[in-house]
Amino acid sequence: MSNEREVRVLEIKKSVFENNDREAEKLRDELKEKKIFLLNLMSSPGSGKTTTLKRTIAALKDEYKIGVMEADIDSDVDAKAIAETGAKAIQLHTGGMCHLDAGMTRQGLDALIENDVEFAILENVGNLVCPAEFDTGAVKNAAILSVPEGHDKPLKYPLMFEVCDVVLVNKIDVMPYFDFDMEKCKEYVHMRNPKAEIIEISAKEGKGIDEWAAWLKKEIDAWRG
Amino acid sequence: MSNEREVRVLEIKKSVFENNDREAEKLRDELKEKKIFLLNLMSSPGSGKTTTLKRTIAALKDEYKIGVMEADIDSDVDAKAIAETGAKAIQLHTGGMCHLDAGMTRQGLDALIENDVEFAILENVGNLVCPAEFDTGAVKNAAILSVPEGHDKPLKYPLMFEVCDVVLVNKIDVMPYFDFDMEKCKEYVHMRNPKAEIIEISAKEGKGIDEWAAWLKKEIDAWRG
Repeated sequence: MSNEREVRVLEIKKSVFENNDREAEKLRDELKEKKIFLLNLMSSPGSGKTTTLKRTIAALKDEYKIGVMEADIDSDVDAKAIAETGAKAIQLHTGGMCHLDAGMTRQGLDALIENDVEFAILENVGNLVCPAEFDTGAVKNAAILSVPEGHDKPLKYPLMFEVCDVVLVNKIDVMPYFDFDMEKCKEYVHMRNPKAEIIEISAKEGKGIDEWAAWLKKEIDAWRG
Repeated sequence: MSNEREVRVLEIKKSVFENNDREAEKLRDELKEKKIFLLNLMSSPGSGKTTTLKRTIAALKDEYKIGVMEADIDSDVDAKAIAETGAKAIQLHTGGMCHLDAGMTRQGLDALIENDVEFAILENVGNLVCPAEFDTGAVKNAAILSVPEGHDKPLKYPLMFEVCDVVLVNKIDVMPYFDFDMEKCKEYVHMRNPKAEIIEISAKEGKGIDEWAAWLKKEIDAWRG
């Protein structure tokens, strides 16, 4: 942690817990008691997590006190971008680790809880493989799949799409320039997880953000009671 | 392995070797002796590894006997696409594992060696994090970074760009539709690795493939002696 930075940077430590699933359940119980909704946002590098978050914060900042944990191997560019929105932002440095588990998520959450956050978001490490294997303790899991990546990704990264409650198909503004088949994409996502909600968005242009914010509001209010 | 498939599918096993670096050096020594050049190709999901490989094979198939190992968690769509080019293609299923090490690479290479391959390519799992941590035994490492992912990726995934001998900046045909700063991208890559070669390509349109094939030919001929 350094005072010279605009945002707080936490060098997170490897978890000491052997049973991550149990630790994740414990964390969710605490979140329920404290009325905090935690969203785990996952995707490939460069599919638009940070831009989507900025839009999400703009849409919901009058409803909830929002805090974001930006998990990155290095750099704090994303946390600075989030801090500019007025939301509480914390940069988590994973020290080379490719995912977050419940113990690591807790290290970041403690700092958000101090700030009375109601809606906490974990921007996981950009990676379609490893983050899917670890329950972070989040209430809901979201994945972003962007148009330039191709509609076949749910075939090639099955677990990510199995564990997701909602899939945001981002960068629909560039659909004309890519061979992306939206119907096939939806079919492949539902092959992995028939219950997954799919929302088409362009975070850059703001398209679909209303629908995404409405989905979040419904889930957050149901959780907080 | 199944005879019904168009391509051979190998379910690779976790390596038993404790010292991956030593195993990788051993593999490289064997490749030198057998005059086989092995390229390790890494990138995020959806940045265009398979399309780039198809172009690469078309450019060099009259010069070398080419074989490709397609590492994927699931599916064999990429290996089928490669088999259509006439190159020898083997699908490696990693069983959920997020990277390949030298022991896993060797399992696939044995099948290519049977086919007298001179230029072997490992298409690693789509992931900018974990594959960078494991020496596969390859002679050279290449990474693809595609324009839609953004020019800041070398800041956020430092190790990948440190270990790469060459970075292909792909999808330059869609530059007008994205906020991608090529000069910044090159600056960031060279921050991580001043010696890295950077080649701009559009695998879709075939741009830059000549330069990439020339780089490969120089490296392959130097290795094979």
